[in-house]
Amino acid sequence: MVEELTLSETKTILDAAEEKALELDVPLNLAVTNSEGNLLGFRRMDGAKLVASSIAQDKAYTAAAVKKPTHELKEAAEPGGDVYGLQSTDGGRVVVFGGGFPAVHDGVVVGAVGASGGAVEEDMAASRAGLDAFESLR
Amino acid sequence: MVEELTLSETKTILDAAEEKALELDVPLNLAVTNSEGNLLGFRRMDGAKLVASSIAQDKAYTAAAVKKPTHELKEAAEPGGDVYGLQSTDGGRVVVFGGGFPAVHDGVVVGAVGASGGAVEEDMAASRAGLDAFESLR
Amino acid sequence: MVEELTLSETKTILDAAEEKALELDVPLNLAVTNSEGNLLGFRRMDGAKLVASSIAQDKAYTAAAVKKPTHELKEAAEPGGDVYGLQSTDGGRVVVFGGGFPAVHDGVVVGAVGASGGAVEEDMAASRAGLDAFESLR
Amino acid sequence: MVEELTLSETKTILDAAEEKALELDVPLNLAVTNSEGNLLGFRRMDGAKLVASSIAQDKAYTAAAVKKPTHELKEAAEPGGDVYGLQSTDGGRVVVFGGGFPAVHDGVVVGAVGASGGAVEEDMAASRAGLDAFESLR
Repeated sequence: MVEELTLSETKTILDAAEEKALELDVPLNLAVTNSEGNLLGFRRMDGAKLVASSIAQDKAYTAAAVKKPTHELKEAAEPGGDVYGLQSTDGGRVVVFGGGFPAVHDGVVVGAVGASGGAVEEDMAASRAGLDAFESLR
Repeated sequence: MVEELTLSETKTILDAAEEKALELDVPLNLAVTNSEGNLLGFRRMDGAKLVASSIAQDKAYTAAAVKKPTHELKEAAEPGGDVYGLQSTDGGRVVVFGGGFPAVHDGVVVGAVGASGGAVEEDMAASRAGLDAFESLR
Repeated sequence: MVEELTLSETKTILDAAEEKALELDVPLNLAVTNSEGNLLGFRRMDGAKLVASSIAQDKAYTAAAVKKPTHELKEAAEPGGDVYGLQSTDGGRVVVFGGGFPAVHDGVVVGAVGASGGAVEEDMAASRAGLDAFESLR
Repeated sequence: MVEELTLSETKTILDAAEEKALELDVPLNLAVTNSEGNLLGFRRMDGAKLVASSIAQDKAYTAAAVKKPTHELKEAAEPGGDVYGLQSTDGGRVVVFGGGFPAVHDGVVVGAVGASGGAVEEDMAASRAGLDAFESLR
């Protein structure tokens, strides 16, 4: 039995990620999905890039669907890697660079968070801030 | 020259729509787009139907893209109507039943709100509550 | 051998359709395709509805692909008609209401024009104006 | 607050890009979008490659959606780059080679231009000619 993320938790995650983005002074797109990769919450910050809207959602989707942070997929998806071309699979929804993290509770993935629109480290910092907020809740 | 919805306004709209849904005791999916139909904010309430996730987004998209409330499209899209089959156009994103409203400022569409997951009247009531909150802001 | 529309002819068609739309005072999306339904020219007039962008293109596509004006498809696509549901076929690109016309030369379809964004009669008037301009060219 | 490209400006951009392509003697597909990546104008020159129709549109989309010229995305999207696989994201609409440029006014992206069908330098030259024409307008 998966205790899925609630909307209340989703807002807490998005608030923390948004706060981090404001602190970094970079407008991001922020997304949260449940364990099945379906969208629970989304915010496009003022001035955030359009392209990053679907990327943020797909980072969260990927983290939930693969049950791993997206940056851990990069090496294996590159030429010579075990799953070269992974990013083109699953209808092109798999993102293989950083910014998506699964939310884990008692060893079970209960959802995921994704951020996009800045440098990869900025996206990762915002997502991780959201994740930290989640972890302090449960 | 469009003064697009801000994220702050988006949250105000979603808060009001969510409050109305709680009052009606029906879990909804709630979406806000900008004037070009791109997503600014989204919430899936606890227990809300999955199918209504894309419908809420597409209702907001439709209201922005057609510059009309979605329930006004119904009659013309039905058999015998002027634009019979409208719901199949634009990649299937056009929703021709109620629950989507454009947000208008100074006669210009600046975004839209959509709700889905309940009876059409419930969806409309939630969207309209979001719209009312927007109108009291500007 | 099909003598396909040239870009020069495409512009003449779009100019005439745009002029008609200005005369009718309704902002439209205007599209021209070749005989294989691929886009040759497109214009979104200032203030034209977003939804009508793909619909104008799909009207032209449909007229080329079916080799008939789109309004002639309506009756047969309605409940009880011979091809009920036609509008959902071909990836949803078939439009069964008015505003798309094939451009015919020596009995052969050489392209098509589509307009969308107004009332169906307005869309048809703009497309037909484009078509008239084409016919006076050849 | 974005002062979007007008259709008149769109035509000026397309005229200049087309003139450059004629000068280079290479038939191109030429596209202009607004700041949210939606198509405002399109031309397929006589003899231009079909594949380049969607690429020109997607180059303009990408430049608007990423707020950068498309050639600047190349290095980071390659193996070993920060956003390896970027071209597979956003439904495969992100183009990471040259030929797309954002149109910027007062520091704000107000639209974009894309060209495709020739060598990358030819595509870039045509797009840049369109951009120069835009910049001399505002």
